[in-house]
Amino acid sequence: MSILVVGSVAFDDITSPSGGVKNILGGAATYFSLAASYFTQVRVVAVVGEDFGPEQEKVFQKRGVDTRGIEHARGKSFHWGGTYSHNLNEAKTDFTHLNVFEHFHPRIPREYDDTEFLFLANIQPTLQANVRRSMNGVRFTGCDTMNYWIQGTPKELAETLKLVDVLLINDTETKMLAGESNLPRAAHKVLALGPQALVIKHGEYGATIFFREGAFGIGHHPFRAPALPIEEVKDPTGAGDSFAGGFMGYLAAQEEVSREVLKRALFYGGVMGSFAVERFGTERLQSLTREEIDARFQVFRELTHLE
Amino acid sequence: MSILVVGSVAFDDITSPSGGVKNILGGAATYFSLAASYFTQVRVVAVVGEDFGPEQEKVFQKRGVDTRGIEHARGKSFHWGGTYSHNLNEAKTDFTHLNVFEHFHPRIPREYDDTEFLFLANIQPTLQANVRRSMNGVRFTGCDTMNYWIQGTPKELAETLKLVDVLLINDTETKMLAGESNLPRAAHKVLALGPQALVIKHGEYGATIFFREGAFGIGHHPFRAPALPIEEVKDPTGAGDSFAGGFMGYLAAQEEVSREVLKRALFYGGVMGSFAVERFGTERLQSLTREEIDARFQVFRELTHLE
Repeated sequence: MSILVVGSVAFDDITSPSGGVKNILGGAATYFSLAASYFTQVRVVAVVGEDFGPEQEKVFQKRGVDTRGIEHARGKSFHWGGTYSHNLNEAKTDFTHLNVFEHFHPRIPREYDDTEFLFLANIQPTLQANVRRSMNGVRFTGCDTMNYWIQGTPKELAETLKLVDVLLINDTETKMLAGESNLPRAAHKVLALGPQALVIKHGEYGATIFFREGAFGIGHHPFRAPALPIEEVKDPTGAGDSFAGGFMGYLAAQEEVSREVLKRALFYGGVMGSFAVERFGTERLQSLTREEIDARFQVFRELTHLE
Repeated sequence: MSILVVGSVAFDDITSPSGGVKNILGGAATYFSLAASYFTQVRVVAVVGEDFGPEQEKVFQKRGVDTRGIEHARGKSFHWGGTYSHNLNEAKTDFTHLNVFEHFHPRIPREYDDTEFLFLANIQPTLQANVRRSMNGVRFTGCDTMNYWIQGTPKELAETLKLVDVLLINDTETKMLAGESNLPRAAHKVLALGPQALVIKHGEYGATIFFREGAFGIGHHPFRAPALPIEEVKDPTGAGDSFAGGFMGYLAAQEEVSREVLKRALFYGGVMGSFAVERFGTERLQSLTREEIDARFQVFRELTHLE
């Protein structure tokens, strides 16, 4: 099954305690695509500028990602600069140049009409909703968002959430969206807004999936996948998008989206996030093998499984 | 096997978003004792003042805890006051009256000489070391400490750490003790100071145990136990001490301390910590059954186990 991601393709300048890089390929749709490409066929809808050339294109092609949905516009690509201090959990944004991304209006190529799995990366909520509504064949939609939209466009976001099957956000975003500081209570409030499931990403502590009552079979307990304690975190950029790529990519490759499949997907999300941070930018995600991925899946599993 | 805990027995004033209580029984040794009492015979060495009477004594007796090691001194017991805001992860200390605890010099009753399991709750490191050295029969020692001793008495703490088998501290304390911001790297540095194993408590995200190479059998991977996402957190006070009580109490009841036993102990630690926070003070820990404990152990297990 193929999966379509709609989001940003960008250039990043990143500084962390491990060093610094400039003008490397980044963006949510890029990390997502590369991570998902180890599980299924990936299609991308994004906009880039004239600085996006054959070198960048090749990164997608090498992983078999379908880039026919990447629009080439006049001007420069989205460019972000950020710095991580010793606490690697949060980036200080040095600059954000939206450039061609400022007027991004996702256009879905005809060839993508048979898409069944859709991931709406972090863009303006009305754009997300329009994409979803324009694609009749989609049967499972994942969605990301951020504090900027939660606070700035709550009504638009509420409309979007009615259209998605699973929302993937972090602890802070969940509490903000629900207006509730207790995480499980916040999760239930978010589920009442529309999604069948909510994946809360905890960074180095893994992720928890909460299910709406009755969704994906019987049971009411949440499920938690740990993250591997990693000694070499070079660059946390894109960890969340890589998580989403592993999670959604694994789902799209399965025959059905059951509760058990969602649990395994949560582990694969953590696996892809953990690879992403080991090198700057997308370097690690470009050169993995499915064997390496499955070996880490086993490590993650053994990390919490009793005999 | 019986276990001895050396630490504080206190009175607490606690305010949280769920309400407030005054003069309730608290202290690390109290939470530890009650949690461990569901697994094994518990002995306490502590000091209390004249305000500690039959009502407080009864809480220990009901759980079969041996209180012959509790010294009754002239004056008032240790009294702590703290407030939790909506972020329940950290308490603001309103006051700390050490009272009789200020001159606490643990005295081990003769009847405790056959103790094999020892837990050194958070007290001055040299006192901890002296207790350990005075007890020749002890074959397994757990230890807690805090930022105050890590920063204030590093040399004394280093001596103590050479004598303990497992250290139980949180993320911040681990990083502070190691002088290293990456958690797995910090863990290895702490293990090099003496302990065979290090349990890092992550609060609502569970705990991770790191093993010294070659300790407790083969393998080099850490192990992580999740915490249950809890909707009703009334009072986080004593969660870490209850965790330690569940962890050490379970260990003391087993025939040997193997790696697999330590993993299960980590789950039981999380279970007891999760019960403790459901009510103010030690209320929940006073009235549990082993059936409730094992039922939650199963929930914790299913929380992360794939089929």
